[in-house]
Amino acid sequence: MGINGEPLYLGFQGVHGSFSEEALLKHFGHTHKTCNYEEFEDVFEALRQGTIEYGVLPIENSSTGSITQIYDLLRKYNYYIVGETKIKVEHHLFGIKGATIEDIKELYSHPQGFQQSTAYLKKLKGVQLIPYYNTAISAKHIQELGDKTKGAIASKRAGMLYELDLLQERINTIKENYTRFVVIGREKEYRLSHNKMTVLFTLPHKAGTLYDQLKIFSAYEISMSKIESRPVGDGTFHYCFYIDADINLSPEEMEKVLFEIQKNTVEFKLLGTYQRED
Amino acid sequence: MGINGEPLYLGFQGVHGSFSEEALLKHFGHTHKTCNYEEFEDVFEALRQGTIEYGVLPIENSSTGSITQIYDLLRKYNYYIVGETKIKVEHHLFGIKGATIEDIKELYSHPQGFQQSTAYLKKLKGVQLIPYYNTAISAKHIQELGDKTKGAIASKRAGMLYELDLLQERINTIKENYTRFVVIGREKEYRLSHNKMTVLFTLPHKAGTLYDQLKIFSAYEISMSKIESRPVGDGTFHYCFYIDADINLSPEEMEKVLFEIQKNTVEFKLLGTYQRED
Repeated sequence: MGINGEPLYLGFQGVHGSFSEEALLKHFGHTHKTCNYEEFEDVFEALRQGTIEYGVLPIENSSTGSITQIYDLLRKYNYYIVGETKIKVEHHLFGIKGATIEDIKELYSHPQGFQQSTAYLKKLKGVQLIPYYNTAISAKHIQELGDKTKGAIASKRAGMLYELDLLQERINTIKENYTRFVVIGREKEYRLSHNKMTVLFTLPHKAGTLYDQLKIFSAYEISMSKIESRPVGDGTFHYCFYIDADINLSPEEMEKVLFEIQKNTVEFKLLGTYQRED
Repeated sequence: MGINGEPLYLGFQGVHGSFSEEALLKHFGHTHKTCNYEEFEDVFEALRQGTIEYGVLPIENSSTGSITQIYDLLRKYNYYIVGETKIKVEHHLFGIKGATIEDIKELYSHPQGFQQSTAYLKKLKGVQLIPYYNTAISAKHIQELGDKTKGAIASKRAGMLYELDLLQERINTIKENYTRFVVIGREKEYRLSHNKMTVLFTLPHKAGTLYDQLKIFSAYEISMSKIESRPVGDGTFHYCFYIDADINLSPEEMEKVLFEIQKNTVEFKLLGTYQRED
């Protein structure tokens, strides 16, 4: 992307060395300008203000599930999913230069870093786990502390970036652990080659409406790859549905399907069509 | 419950004054023995060890959605949902005895306590928000600190229990905010009067299987009230589905439905039948 090969302005949440930055670089390459933000919502705001052209945000992890805040922000802001990418998440144990595993008394990481490494952590005796903002900030933090008793669980990239010593490789319990990221932009970018779409809708509070809705997908032989329910947010236990589906339709069929799906909804949005990453 | 009116042993996660304790007391009344645990999983372990007969655990909030960890634990442990209850969640701002709003420089709460009170918090200038274990522990913590500059966002019950001063009532942005809790037990407790069931299943990785599955619900005019997707946990983006449905079936029909639902699954469990709380 980038008209005339000019560099794009791209945003992600977190510090340098984060998995989000890794996903961004994987999707767009290294020739663009990147801006990092403290909160997920800051990335949406940066899009709104025109500071960035695209944002890259984590939407689900194969062990821990959806990052629901992103689903809620996609509904709140009027932007689109224009791409996706996946990266393998591996956690490693780091200390500052010269530290050994035996030195470590306090361990910093994002709660998911701990949760995804429980089997290994159970074997470490007398080590206090300190939940921290995210894995990359944890790596940065122990570098700043410069104390051999402080360790961090983080990605290899973060550990290298903050010049830490790798004390134990791949401590994540589940070895096959992936995070899927979405690329968001201000405009819909429909292309004939797109083989995936995401729609969101809410339905009237009546029995059978979800089934009726899914019937449409079935009639057009559209295979749903994901269904996510989020509260509508009005204090009731009613939901907004986000459906990922594989598509292989002509523009005319696409239009017909979207019309059919929209027909029975209280709220509807085509969140985007894009290229599936397998 | 409790054969011969003997007190039951009941478990919840959190400290005294937590919303979970409130839900437990609402469902079972005040005549039983309660045990509180640090982690959600500890409640399941207490069931396994026979320390408690039932546990009460939060499963979803009307603003922030599912507590996915509970869904995963329900799949991991072989126990059942035997009841549900809902409570209204309201957040209040507390300080220690004699403190005023102007004194507060640091505010402790669960991240959701902050997230659910953003509109009010934006008006507080120069106050640092410190994410803490949960709202009740935050209340307990500032009582222990005994410092007028430390405040907590917590429930009225927690504030009263830890003898704090109420500085501002109902600061939650969304006034209608409920949390639904499930009661879990070691055995299925099927009664004719039960009008709700929860099933979990995983399906073969083929297009259209979810739709085919939902067809069964539709054929028996069973209305789904919730569908939750959680990763299967094998490193792929495939899901285990949890469906809440309203039931109004004879035992014979119930058996037939369950047989039909089970037929096409890779994994299936009737997580329980119980009385819906409206």
